[in-house]
Amino acid sequence: MAENKIIKSKFFFEEEEIEQLAEVSERKYRPWPNNDKLKVVGKGITRLDGYDKVSGSATYAFDVILPRMTFAKTLRCPHPHARIKSIDTSKAEKIKGVLGIITYLNAPKIKWYGNSFLFDPHLRYEGDEVACVAAVSEAIAEQALKAIKVEYELLPFVVDARKALKKDAPKLHKEGNVVRGKPSKYNRGDLQNGLKEADVVIEQTFNTQVEIHNPTEPHGSVVNWNGDHLTIWDSTQGVFRVRSQVAAALGLPESNVRVIKKYMGGGFGSKLEAGKYTVMAALLAKTIGRPVRIALDRREMNLAVGNRPDSFQTLKGAVTKDGRLTALYLKSIGSAGAYPAGTGCAWPLRSMYDCPNVSVEEYGVYINAGRARAFRAPGHVQGFFALEQLIDMLAEKVNMDPLEFRLQNYAHEEPNWHIPYTSKLLKQAYLVGAKSIGWEQRNKVAGSQSGPIKTGIGMSSQIWWGGGGPPAYANLKLNRDGSVQIIAGSQDLGTGTYTILAQVASEVLDIPVEKIEVILGDTDTAPYCGSSGGSTTAASVTPAVRDAAEQMMDKLYSAAMAQFDLPKNKIKYAKGKFSTVEPKPRVLTIGQLARKMGERVLETVGRREANPKGYAINSFGAQFAEVAVDTNTGKIKVQKIVAAYDIGRVLNRLTIDNQIHGGIIQGLGFALFEDRILDRNTGKMLNANFHDYKVPTIKDTPEIEIHIVSETDNRLSNTGVKGVGEPAMIPTPAAVANAVYNAIGKRITSLPLTPDKILMALQS
Amino acid sequence: MAENKIIKSKFFFEEEEIEQLAEVSERKYRPWPNNDKLKVVGKGITRLDGYDKVSGSATYAFDVILPRMTFAKTLRCPHPHARIKSIDTSKAEKIKGVLGIITYLNAPKIKWYGNSFLFDPHLRYEGDEVACVAAVSEAIAEQALKAIKVEYELLPFVVDARKALKKDAPKLHKEGNVVRGKPSKYNRGDLQNGLKEADVVIEQTFNTQVEIHNPTEPHGSVVNWNGDHLTIWDSTQGVFRVRSQVAAALGLPESNVRVIKKYMGGGFGSKLEAGKYTVMAALLAKTIGRPVRIALDRREMNLAVGNRPDSFQTLKGAVTKDGRLTALYLKSIGSAGAYPAGTGCAWPLRSMYDCPNVSVEEYGVYINAGRARAFRAPGHVQGFFALEQLIDMLAEKVNMDPLEFRLQNYAHEEPNWHIPYTSKLLKQAYLVGAKSIGWEQRNKVAGSQSGPIKTGIGMSSQIWWGGGGPPAYANLKLNRDGSVQIIAGSQDLGTGTYTILAQVASEVLDIPVEKIEVILGDTDTAPYCGSSGGSTTAASVTPAVRDAAEQMMDKLYSAAMAQFDLPKNKIKYAKGKFSTVEPKPRVLTIGQLARKMGERVLETVGRREANPKGYAINSFGAQFAEVAVDTNTGKIKVQKIVAAYDIGRVLNRLTIDNQIHGGIIQGLGFALFEDRILDRNTGKMLNANFHDYKVPTIKDTPEIEIHIVSETDNRLSNTGVKGVGEPAMIPTPAAVANAVYNAIGKRITSLPLTPDKILMALQS
Repeated sequence: MAENKIIKSKFFFEEEEIEQLAEVSERKYRPWPNNDKLKVVGKGITRLDGYDKVSGSATYAFDVILPRMTFAKTLRCPHPHARIKSIDTSKAEKIKGVLGIITYLNAPKIKWYGNSFLFDPHLRYEGDEVACVAAVSEAIAEQALKAIKVEYELLPFVVDARKALKKDAPKLHKEGNVVRGKPSKYNRGDLQNGLKEADVVIEQTFNTQVEIHNPTEPHGSVVNWNGDHLTIWDSTQGVFRVRSQVAAALGLPESNVRVIKKYMGGGFGSKLEAGKYTVMAALLAKTIGRPVRIALDRREMNLAVGNRPDSFQTLKGAVTKDGRLTALYLKSIGSAGAYPAGTGCAWPLRSMYDCPNVSVEEYGVYINAGRARAFRAPGHVQGFFALEQLIDMLAEKVNMDPLEFRLQNYAHEEPNWHIPYTSKLLKQAYLVGAKSIGWEQRNKVAGSQSGPIKTGIGMSSQIWWGGGGPPAYANLKLNRDGSVQIIAGSQDLGTGTYTILAQVASEVLDIPVEKIEVILGDTDTAPYCGSSGGSTTAASVTPAVRDAAEQMMDKLYSAAMAQFDLPKNKIKYAKGKFSTVEPKPRVLTIGQLARKMGERVLETVGRREANPKGYAINSFGAQFAEVAVDTNTGKIKVQKIVAAYDIGRVLNRLTIDNQIHGGIIQGLGFALFEDRILDRNTGKMLNANFHDYKVPTIKDTPEIEIHIVSETDNRLSNTGVKGVGEPAMIPTPAAVANAVYNAIGKRITSLPLTPDKILMALQS
Repeated sequence: MAENKIIKSKFFFEEEEIEQLAEVSERKYRPWPNNDKLKVVGKGITRLDGYDKVSGSATYAFDVILPRMTFAKTLRCPHPHARIKSIDTSKAEKIKGVLGIITYLNAPKIKWYGNSFLFDPHLRYEGDEVACVAAVSEAIAEQALKAIKVEYELLPFVVDARKALKKDAPKLHKEGNVVRGKPSKYNRGDLQNGLKEADVVIEQTFNTQVEIHNPTEPHGSVVNWNGDHLTIWDSTQGVFRVRSQVAAALGLPESNVRVIKKYMGGGFGSKLEAGKYTVMAALLAKTIGRPVRIALDRREMNLAVGNRPDSFQTLKGAVTKDGRLTALYLKSIGSAGAYPAGTGCAWPLRSMYDCPNVSVEEYGVYINAGRARAFRAPGHVQGFFALEQLIDMLAEKVNMDPLEFRLQNYAHEEPNWHIPYTSKLLKQAYLVGAKSIGWEQRNKVAGSQSGPIKTGIGMSSQIWWGGGGPPAYANLKLNRDGSVQIIAGSQDLGTGTYTILAQVASEVLDIPVEKIEVILGDTDTAPYCGSSGGSTTAASVTPAVRDAAEQMMDKLYSAAMAQFDLPKNKIKYAKGKFSTVEPKPRVLTIGQLARKMGERVLETVGRREANPKGYAINSFGAQFAEVAVDTNTGKIKVQKIVAAYDIGRVLNRLTIDNQIHGGIIQGLGFALFEDRILDRNTGKMLNANFHDYKVPTIKDTPEIEIHIVSETDNRLSNTGVKGVGEPAMIPTPAAVANAVYNAIGKRITSLPLTPDKILMALQS
């Protein structure tokens, strides 16, 4: 599994961090029974931070107001590719209220994105940072941006990955346009043998578009210096990661940098790394001796803080006539954007099915556009869109029901390493989902319905990395009145972390969640937790909380035994009270016990135990879509999505359902209309706003039915949680595409599934 | 010592807290060598928070600005004793910008000061709380206060403790005017026998005035609710104490209340308990749904947040003609003010000298004035003023040098419990101090100098509780770059806690203090520490920090041994690096080791070990004063103070010298001019401001010479610190009074030593 983890982490982390995932903490875990035997865990408790959110009193990064705070705005390159010939800031500096301006001329040379700099005179995309201004108001800062004169040398550009691979394409970096100089390859078995063995071979090309993260809360920071100590209120998925990056950028010890995040309005991967804006704000704050707030606007978010890279995937699939997969092949090209980023999407093909011969070749390509970043299930959403349509195509060729075909090629062990899974209930998910959508009512012959509105049913499987892992810690403090504090270095992206951590402690300590205060997101005071990415938060942190709570119970039991002078089996514990009947009835609350122990606040430190060795940890699931296609307009109406998942332990059905709803809706946006459009002629983004770049709303939301087939994964960890954040989105576009095929009998291989593509397909 | 501690804590804590001081943590300590063998501890490192303080960027409670924050002001009773007949707030409510008004009519009935209430219609002193107003600005809140109509029934009052003891005196409380209904008594040996044994018996009455704490930073809080969660930025000496009190007052679990304090401009005991203002602000904030800031002004601080109670002390001292103390007696009366408070001052007499027969009777008395609170060495400053003059008088009667007399009656064991001290270097302090002041040059016959300016030399001993104790914890986090965070629930009152904690960690970890960030004063995230009172902070918290750092070194050594595959004795550690020469030269920084351990942040939790059983722990010291008295004007000029102390381990000579300077200067203010003046006829305070109530400034500061005779107290704790905050002030007034006697031959028995008293004495 260590191997597995290292590869997994490629999607999210810089290499430097990978070695950290070595498993060193001891393995010592006591599986819980199923949820029906538990009191709090698994219950649909509403969010403990609900009041804060709905009342508006929740503190987001931009709600921080500091005395003498100033405001920064960024001048961004208007061209896809240019070099700065000269910058003149003198006019801007003279504007009343302008306090400081930094450019590549006066800022320190801080390395960023590998070999370029925080401010680099070589600008590689529309949105690249040219200057940053601090002023007494945002309006004045914006006025100053307009007054900065920049002379650009315009350079030839390329905004299409396939063109960028051509010999004569403009080069973005010295090493050429292929990220790391070469493709990434994987082989198992023998592809050619596999193709020969087969009765049917299909080759098909798919492509997916660029998607912008567009979380509700924009990116930004408030920064404040005290001497050489820097405090950052940041909208981030990883407070410790931001701390490391900013400390390294500014040459500070990590102990001098404090990163705080209480609430967040989403990140989806775009907030896993420190932003240039944070460091720019810190440099300005240092220069002008005042706090600085920097808040990106929607246009900047569309241009400059990440996206899901597009993909151009050529797949080959080979099967015997009895429906046994013998070979799978993928060549993919993905746009990294202007700087190094991961673009791979081969993992679905490598890990979903039992196929002995697999070959993969993947190219990450520089183009003159905003850099890609991890985006909810990076690679998997793209990969499954292609793979799961190919699977349907293969099934059709051998005259098998697509679901039967999937069961036929079910991976009973992990196909890359030939090790067992800690648990895999995908079959159960298939069957529950199929029953629920009415699988038997799908068109036996695709597109065979008469009339202009044709309905169809389709499905897609999914697999994702699961289970999280160490290092993750939680401190638990018991107050004298029996209330509790839990402190963890994790963060709640809006997914319910505050609530589930309280539930786990409540379960162990048998006190109500209202007496448990969870504190997250402060690098100075919290023990370490990793970034909230990869669906790892609940899976990594809840076992640490359970461990801390159980250590506390052990302490309290020892004290109760001493106080009562009785063995453990003569003492009862329930609802925060120890009691005994013999020799006489006595009761001690945990608060009273803490007092008798001479403690005002009792503390324990819990840790995430190691994952089991020799097992693959994955979550599984499937979505089934029912669509209605209007063959006159080409419009797709998604009528229903059924989601069925094996995600290990259910901690809270409400927050899980929230995550799955969100994943499906985001998946529908990607399936049906979200698309970053770059103008081929100018290299500029045409829809960097919410008007032209559509994100789905409640009006686009179909009926959603959710089935969780797992109770827990008892082999995995103290809490048996695998994670659900990313799995929720992965199969949606593929399920919709397969349903569309089932409706109209035409296969759309390119996302988004817009009416023009439907009409074109119907006419072909 | 458990007994000792319980009695000690009477000064500072409510009874409820006393049981907490039971000693339960295990005793496991490794004494350090003397400071000359240490690298960082004992060095005069300048404050790590110096930049924050001098740049103005330090965040005090009132620097917190919150969105929609409002401002509260308090209407206080203008009479010394009254009952509210009616309150009409209707006019005030109509003022634009007034948001909320609470009085006893609409506020919840929250118990305060024992049997009265947060808002009580029975008002017992000028300053008692009548109403609290929240408005959009302080100015509007003040305007509203003036518009509130209150009809008072005026009640007879008493502002002199001796008068309050009379039968026909107005009664403040049902139980009468004696606090707890009866005096506090202590006896050892047989007083009458002791008096009979003696050759000389002196009876003398002394009295000391009321002193106001007047820290630079006023009292106050900023409060903010999120649902039923309350955050308080408070100027407090005890964040956990404030949390307990406010949670209890508002009926909240402690986990719902967060108290934060980063910097403080002094407290001197007046900030050891939660203020009514905090709870009033919280009630208003809840009602109006906005954050509230409440900041007391200087007048309110003089009236309503505590003082050092006055004392009327009658002492008897008995000695044999060879200078052996045979009996000591004290009857004291002290003004508690309008509500229960400690007023005792018998400990100096009980514990300073080896005297077999001691009898004490002490009365705490209610008067119609602001309530007393702990004030830097409560009881001891008053007690020593009387005792040490009595000692000089006795010495003179038996023709002994006062210093020789003190050595003759030196307590070689603790006189109350007959147990040894962990250490006592008072003799060394006497000798060093005497030499330094030029003791042999004092007037052999008091007042014998000719000329109008007469100089004199006097001295006073001091004893104080020392050594702190559990529970106190510190969390230590090692970051991957080798920098460190220390988190403790303590607070830095301005005394240098941030710096000394970093020094202790630096000593163990052998990394510079600049790479160590200390975080204090946050109940949500810190492990428990007690309030900063009783000179316990350094003594309680530094051993916890050392323990945490040593646990960290143990972890790192284990990891280094595993990495190098070598036994400990083949591995060297210095300056954050492990190294080995054989079999080949290798170096690993602690940051690299943490990585190899699979950790991004390594954490340990240190704890304060138990104090040694069967030992008394006290700090000792003496001050010597040289004064010049102008017999024409009665003015005293203190020319020099020599301070010599046994305070256990010296952690940082700069911060220790700062504390001693501060203590002496505050002691001089008390000795020479500070005095709360209540008008006998109106019962009101005449000098509730900095113009009429003088506090000492740099112009009142004499030459000060400091000698620390201790290196450490190795029997005490991991760091051997006894504490210096209060000892610094204790002997100053007595030393000055004895020096004045030595100069003019007249004994002034009443503080402050104002020119009128000198002139009166000279004329008698």
